[in-house]
This record gives sequence, structure tokens and C-alpha cells, in this order.
Amino acid sequence: MNNFITPLLTDMYQLTMAYSYWKNDRHNEICIFDLFFRQCPFEGQFCIFAGLSEVLEFVRNFHFKQKEIDYLRTILPDCDPEYFEYLSSIDATGVKIYALPEGTLCFPREPLIQVRGPLAVCQLLETTLLTLVNFASLVTTNASRMHQAAGPGKNLLEFGLRRAQGPDGGCTASKYAIVGGFHGTSNVMAGYLDNTIGVKGTHAHSFVASYVSLDQIKEPMLTPKNGGEPVNFVQLVLGYRIQLEYEHTNEGELAAFIAYAISFPDGFLALIDTYDTERSGNLNFIAVALSLEELGYTPIGIRLDSGDLASLSKAVKEEWRKVSEQLTRPLLAKCKVAVSNEITEEVLRRFQDQAAEIDILGIGTHLVTCRDQPALGCIYKMVEIEKRPRIKLSSDIGKVTIPGDKKLYRLYGQSGLALLDLMMLHDETAPVVGTTILCINPDDFTQQVRVTPSAVKVLHVLFWDQGFLAEQMPSVIQSQQTVLHSLNEIGREYTSLNKPNNQKYKVSISEPLYRLMKKLWDKERQIKELK
Amino acid sequence: MNNFITPLLTDMYQLTMAYSYWKNDRHNEICIFDLFFRQCPFEGQFCIFAGLSEVLEFVRNFHFKQKEIDYLRTILPDCDPEYFEYLSSIDATGVKIYALPEGTLCFPREPLIQVRGPLAVCQLLETTLLTLVNFASLVTTNASRMHQAAGPGKNLLEFGLRRAQGPDGGCTASKYAIVGGFHGTSNVMAGYLDNTIGVKGTHAHSFVASYVSLDQIKEPMLTPKNGGEPVNFVQLVLGYRIQLEYEHTNEGELAAFIAYAISFPDGFLALIDTYDTERSGNLNFIAVALSLEELGYTPIGIRLDSGDLASLSKAVKEEWRKVSEQLTRPLLAKCKVAVSNEITEEVLRRFQDQAAEIDILGIGTHLVTCRDQPALGCIYKMVEIEKRPRIKLSSDIGKVTIPGDKKLYRLYGQSGLALLDLMMLHDETAPVVGTTILCINPDDFTQQVRVTPSAVKVLHVLFWDQGFLAEQMPSVIQSQQTVLHSLNEIGREYTSLNKPNNQKYKVSISEPLYRLMKKLWDKERQIKELK
Repeated sequence: MNNFITPLLTDMYQLTMAYSYWKNDRHNEICIFDLFFRQCPFEGQFCIFAGLSEVLEFVRNFHFKQKEIDYLRTILPDCDPEYFEYLSSIDATGVKIYALPEGTLCFPREPLIQVRGPLAVCQLLETTLLTLVNFASLVTTNASRMHQAAGPGKNLLEFGLRRAQGPDGGCTASKYAIVGGFHGTSNVMAGYLDNTIGVKGTHAHSFVASYVSLDQIKEPMLTPKNGGEPVNFVQLVLGYRIQLEYEHTNEGELAAFIAYAISFPDGFLALIDTYDTERSGNLNFIAVALSLEELGYTPIGIRLDSGDLASLSKAVKEEWRKVSEQLTRPLLAKCKVAVSNEITEEVLRRFQDQAAEIDILGIGTHLVTCRDQPALGCIYKMVEIEKRPRIKLSSDIGKVTIPGDKKLYRLYGQSGLALLDLMMLHDETAPVVGTTILCINPDDFTQQVRVTPSAVKVLHVLFWDQGFLAEQMPSVIQSQQTVLHSLNEIGREYTSLNKPNNQKYKVSISEPLYRLMKKLWDKERQIKELK
Repeated sequence: MNNFITPLLTDMYQLTMAYSYWKNDRHNEICIFDLFFRQCPFEGQFCIFAGLSEVLEFVRNFHFKQKEIDYLRTILPDCDPEYFEYLSSIDATGVKIYALPEGTLCFPREPLIQVRGPLAVCQLLETTLLTLVNFASLVTTNASRMHQAAGPGKNLLEFGLRRAQGPDGGCTASKYAIVGGFHGTSNVMAGYLDNTIGVKGTHAHSFVASYVSLDQIKEPMLTPKNGGEPVNFVQLVLGYRIQLEYEHTNEGELAAFIAYAISFPDGFLALIDTYDTERSGNLNFIAVALSLEELGYTPIGIRLDSGDLASLSKAVKEEWRKVSEQLTRPLLAKCKVAVSNEITEEVLRRFQDQAAEIDILGIGTHLVTCRDQPALGCIYKMVEIEKRPRIKLSSDIGKVTIPGDKKLYRLYGQSGLALLDLMMLHDETAPVVGTTILCINPDDFTQQVRVTPSAVKVLHVLFWDQGFLAEQMPSVIQSQQTVLHSLNEIGREYTSLNKPNNQKYKVSISEPLYRLMKKLWDKERQIKELK
């Protein structure tokens, strides 16, 4: 785990507030905080919850080290010295954490995480939890949207490390791109941190440009895949070059491809746009690919990093099919086209419209920085203290918090698809299959529907139970599965990227919760209006 | 330093390319790479170079650990086992790094960093260097622009941790916000990592909302600043409340302010917008502030986190002045107004236009995520190999690399302000004060100017000299000074945020460099055009 994730990764005001609570002997009051967002990212209608494994790891290790305490003393010189003893003594053994399983589709105002425990400790967890959930959920959602936009059967690779917001921005993006449905990353550290993450890469333009002529190949020999005498690979390639009348291609580029093929005969993927994609790069690739095939190796394909990627992909494959047929060498026609360069969700959709012949997509900047919306905006609000439910008012009804100790249910219809989500007070009876239940829109209490669920799922799971992990931490692949499963449960009308057709998925509250909310609201409004 | 910053924080293709170079015995060819950007961020005309201290720290520690090598073996199973011995053996002792001092204003196509050394090692540094420079420079530039937009005499605080892109995105943003001119951060970890960074914070809405009545104050006594008998602080405040006819204010809020003031009598800054800013929050603040003052303490002021911040700031201070005069208590009128909530560069400019009475600005999301442009886009290109200069062509002249081993000079006019920057080949004589020199626009060779400098500065400094730090690593405060100094050297017409008036600062090349560029370009174009 990142060594910056300690209790000091927090806002100063958490420590000053905790001090005041402690000083006033309120630090052990038991409270509940909900972590939620108010608006789905990317102008969409869904979000995917992620970041849970880091949250649990952080909570498990939540403890101020002596060095950290020493530092805090220097920045809080006026605090009672006993406060630092108190800070030294705390951990998260008094805390319970309920959360959605990582990868679950979630919607505005739903508690993604519910933290309950002593006031001061819960307060001290706030900023770090937000930092860990906000960006992870944002990237996962972005990756999942791109996965959907790319269409079925594509191989998606995350390429954004150099443009990410710091090293951890990069590693978080790599991990949660996988959770969102990507298949691999170029980021080696991401694979090192979790070896279930596949790491991919071949070569850059600089590699191609570093070769000027075939003389730079100092070791031209390559042993056939199934053994036998090494063959002069350069000569083999040059034979194909003459046979196919490709002698006009760039020789430095050809040398680079040959050098790379000799290094990785079973991993040959050539970047073909350094000089001229169609008149040089692709032809050099073909000559090398056929030579590899002749020696029993399987070439992978090519990468395009500039130009009109969709039409180039078609032109490139057209040439492969032509040569493949001409020489009766079927393997060539099966090679893959990879593309990269400023790919966005919109570009992915356009590729589909244009029937681009693209197999592998390398996506960087727009995935990792979430350019269309670089922050999710989760918040963390107190909803109960000492068994008294709390509400936070706002002139905007969507910003009023939903008070109290709640449970969150997903109700399903006969089709198996989810009908809506329902928040209930913890002591209400759970919704019963086949029994009608009233569901009220918390954004507009006049909007009420009666629903008879065919199946009911409680969404919150107890992950951290006062000092112990109550569930295994999710692996990247499990979370990726949860995303796919969760997407399949929610109707396409809610998850489609096609804005005009999109409907808003219903998040509702039960009648008792509505009554509580109304009651507190009226009471607080009186206070607020100073009556 | 972040534990993710190791040689594995790189793209896989660096390792596959390095393998192919090694396999072909080219890994020790000596080359030069330039790290630069092509376009200034935020539609502006300048950028500020930052990230150097992390770069130097990374280079100093550049070495694959055994565990890392073991992992690489698993993802590169087809590589020659000797390659991993080679990887185990390398470090950056063969590398020289020239760079701009951190905090220097820089412009498109100028090498921010020049890396020279063995081909494979230089290649393996690429991604990490880009990751460390891109975001740091982006945030520094963003912070500096906000510093300018806020106008003189403001106190700027970075509040973005919870919205940052991962923990390191947060810590990078905090540090480089300071370099860009901010005065402090809410991020405790940033201060822990570098204790020259000031950490600030008071309390949140949840703190205010957690108090319902004055009964919750268990310890009402406060000792006067200069000693003496403790005073019942609650009674003291209630006295002012009656005297000023503030009895209608929210009591829970008043209790929260009193509790906080007792905890931090010399650090009292109250968040006053939980209920009603003007009719409750500010009045509660005044009662508490006057009480603190009576006991010899100096209250700091208030924070606003919602509503029309500019007009509220004026209303709040108007009330302070009124009471201050009425009770002849001058300290109150000197209190500060802090604001936060979705502050952008545009909002800062508007505050100036509206003559807002704001002293302290807390800026989060838009600063740390750089919403207007979340990635800078630095690139790293080979410009020389084995003493042969290299060029990379593009149909866009702005994307053609400037070849060769270069030096970068800043030329100054009689006013003391910079005239332009000039790149020259390393073996050219440096520009001479009082001697006219031809400067050519690399974006358009027909644009040429003759300049007679009154002063000349070489911008690149040798920071890493084959195993040793040749210069001290810059501290945050030194870099902040460099930013201010560098901004003062460049005319306002280039650094103004006011787009319509903005001019493009001239980045030029010398005549010999132009001739080299032209020669290589013609040669490569021939290759490229396959003639």
C-alpha cells in the first residue's frame, strides 16, 4: 500500500475538531456517518463504487505512529499534552464499517459506506476515506463507460501513467481501470502491487527512430520456435521484402522491427506509424510477420498512434487479407490492430459507428485524469449521534441529508432486473418478496410508487467489525466481476451512455424514513428560521 | 518519498525496448533526451517547471531491487536470463541531468530537463520523469495563476485532498500549490513530509451541527491569556449576546463556537454559514470574539462556505465595523474573512472586480484536479545518439523536435525584463551582452529577429552529474521564491491571465541550430518520403 496512506493523510480540521470533542468529553459519543455522492459523474445515470480495499486496509492500520504524534505536537502547540496521548491510543477497533461490495452500481444519495463508532475516530477517518473512494470510483466508472463505448470483444489497455496526477494517481487509475473492465495496463508498478493485473507493452517511436539501417542489427540469427538450427532472420525478412515488392520501405524502420522480433519472436507487435503507415510501416510489419510465422512463431499485430485510426485500421487489415490470400498464409489475416492516441469515450463510439477494424485500445490521458469530470465529489455526513438521527438542511432538497441508521435494498422485478433501490430505517422489516411496498422519492416527496418485488437484496455488507475484517477484501478480479454482474442487473435504459434515451434510476425511501426525514426537517427548519 | 516511486513506476514498453537494445548490444550507446511540452496549460502563455526534487530523488535511488527483478522475470518470461542480471546492475551513475531550476517560467519546446547517458537507462527513466514533472508543473502553474487572480495580500490555502486523484495526487498538489504561491494547506501529510509547509484548519459544518444546546458544554471555564483565575466563558459570551441583542441566534451554533473557542482561544476561526450567516453565524461569532478579546486572546475571524461569498464578506465586515465602533473594540474590525466552496480562477477574478472583503481563500477541487486541463502533456524525445543529432518529423511544424545537444539562454533587455529565450547548440559561443544575435522562430523559420541583450542567463543547471548531486535539491520555499523571481523577469504582457491582451513569449533558435534542424529535416523527409 502507498506509504502516504496513514492517519495524517487528512485535513487539519479533523484534528482540531477531534481535539475540541475530546476536550469537551464528547469524543466517545457513538455516531453514524454516511459516505455518498449527490450527482453521477460524466453526466451519466450511474456510478460504480470502488476503493473499498484501500479503505479497509487503511482502517485496519489506523493508528498514529510516534513520529506522527511528534509532528502533530509541533503543529498543535496550544493543545493539552494529554490529547496526544489520547491520539496515540486510538485505533479503529471501536468502528463498524458497512459498505457496498466493491464494483456495485450505485446512485445519488445512497450510502456507499456507513461508518459507525466513536465521534472523534469517525471524524478522523473522513478525509482519507473520501480521498480513497472518490478517485477510485470515478476511474472505475470512467473505465466501465469506455468498456461499454468500445463495444464487445475489444481488448482495453490503460496507458495513462505519464499523464496521471502523481504516481499514486497513476497506480490507482491502473488498478481501477481493470475493475471497470479493462484487460491490462502499461504500468509495471500496478502489476507489481497486484500480480493479477496484466502488464502490456512493446515499443515506442523512439525505438523505431533509433535504427537507421539494417547494419545496426548485430545479431541476425533466430532459432525456430520448435528448435533446430538458427536462421539468418534478416535474410529471411529481406526475401519476403523482395517477393512482395516492398523494397521502397524505410530501412531503419525495418531494422527496428527485425531487432524487436528477434528479441520477442512470440510477442511481435509493431508500431507502424513512425514514417508512413501504409507505404512503409505496415509493409515492413508484413515482411517480418511472415518470417516469424515461417519459423513457427505467432506475430501479434501492429499499433497505430496517429492519423485516422479507424480508416487506417481497415486499410491495414485489407492489405493483410490480400497478402494472406496471395501467399496462402492465414495467420497474417488474424493479426490484431492496436490503437492509441487521445482516445475518449466519444472516439470509441465513433469507432463502432465507422466499423473500425480495431482489436486493442490503449487509453491514457482521458481515462486516468477523467478529463470530462476530474472529481467525483463524495461527501461524508453525520446522520446519527448518540442514537439521535441528524439531518443537514439546504435550500436545495437534493442536498438535504437523509437522516438516521439506514439499510439499503435493491428490489427486483419479474424480469430479474432491478426496479429501484430503497432506503429503510434499520429497524424496519425488510421488503418482502411478493408484498407491495411504498417507495418515496427523497428529491420530491409527492413522487411515490408502490412496488411488489420479485426479489430483494440488501446492498450493505458489514466489512469491518470493531477490529476484524468481517469479509475478505475484494480482489481486483472479483470487483471486476461485481461490476459486470451489477451492470447486468440494471436495465440498459439506466446505464446506456446515450444521453437522450437515458432514464434516471429510482432511489427511494420508505414511508417511516420519509416521516422521520420530514419530522427532523420541520424541526430543524424552525431552528434555522430562528422561530 | 512515495514508496511507489521506484524504477517499476514505468510503462512496460520501456523494459521491452531496453531488452531489445541490450540484446542487440546497443544499451550503452550514449544519447540525449529532452523533456518538454508543446503547449502551455490553461490556454495561457506560460508554464512553471516543477517536480525536480522528486526527479532527483528518483534518479539518485534508481536501482531495481531483487524483489522487483523477480517480478519482472514473471512478466518477461521469454527474455534471456542475463537481461535480469543486467537490470540488477544498472543505476544512474552514468547519467547527467541538466534542468531548469524548479520554479522557472518555461515555454513550449524548451527542454525542461535534458537527460544524457546510456540509451537503455535513459529510456528506463522516461515514464517516471514524465509522471513526476507533468502533474507537479501543472499544479504549480495552476496555483500561480490563482495566486495572480486572487490579487495582492491574500492568504491562499490548498483544501483539495478529498477531491484529489489518489493520496499522492493530493500530496503532490499540496506541495506544488505552495511552490506556485499558496501559503498553506489543509493536508497534514504534506506538512509531515515537509515541515516548511504550513498546515491549517479549524472546523466543519458537522462540528457545528453536532451541538444542539449550551448544555453540551461540559467545561465552560477559560483562563485569561495572561493568567489569573479561570472565567466562566459561557456566561461571558451570553453577556455580550444580551448586550448586543443577539438572543435570537441559533443556540447549538453558539455552543459549538464557544466549545471551539475554549479549545483554541488563540485560533478562533468560526464557520458561520451552517444556519443563517448574517442573522445567526456572524452574530454568534461576534459575541464569542469579543469575549475572547476581553480575556486577552486574538480571535482570527470567520469562514464562509456557501452563498454569495463576495457580498456576504462585505456584509459580515460591515457588522464587525459597526459593533467595533459602538463598543470601541478595534480588534473585531481587524478579523479576517476566509472563504471556500468551488473557487476557480474565474471566481477569484470576480472577487477582485466586486471588491470582496476576503482575506483568506481555501481552494480545493479546481486547484488539485486542474479541472480546466487535467494533464500537461510533457514528452521525452531523443535528440542525439552517439553524437549524431536526431529529429522527429511531423506534418505539424510545432511537433517537429528540435535536434541536438542544446543550451537554453534567456536574453534580457535594458528594462531588466526578458526579451526572449534562445536555444543554441552546445558548442556555440554563448550570446554576448551588447552584441546583436539572430534569433529564429522554430515554428516559422521566416520569423527572425535580431536582438542585442543587456544581460544573458544560461537556464540549464547541471543537477545530477553521473552519480552525484551537483546542486542542492531545491526546498519548497526556494522554489516558491524562484517562481516569484521568474515571474518578475517576464513582462506582464506574457503572463497576464487576461487572454485577449496576451502575447506569446518568443522561444527561438540560433542560426547554427536552425541550419542543423533544416539539414536533418530535409534528410529525414527524404527518407520519410521514401525517395
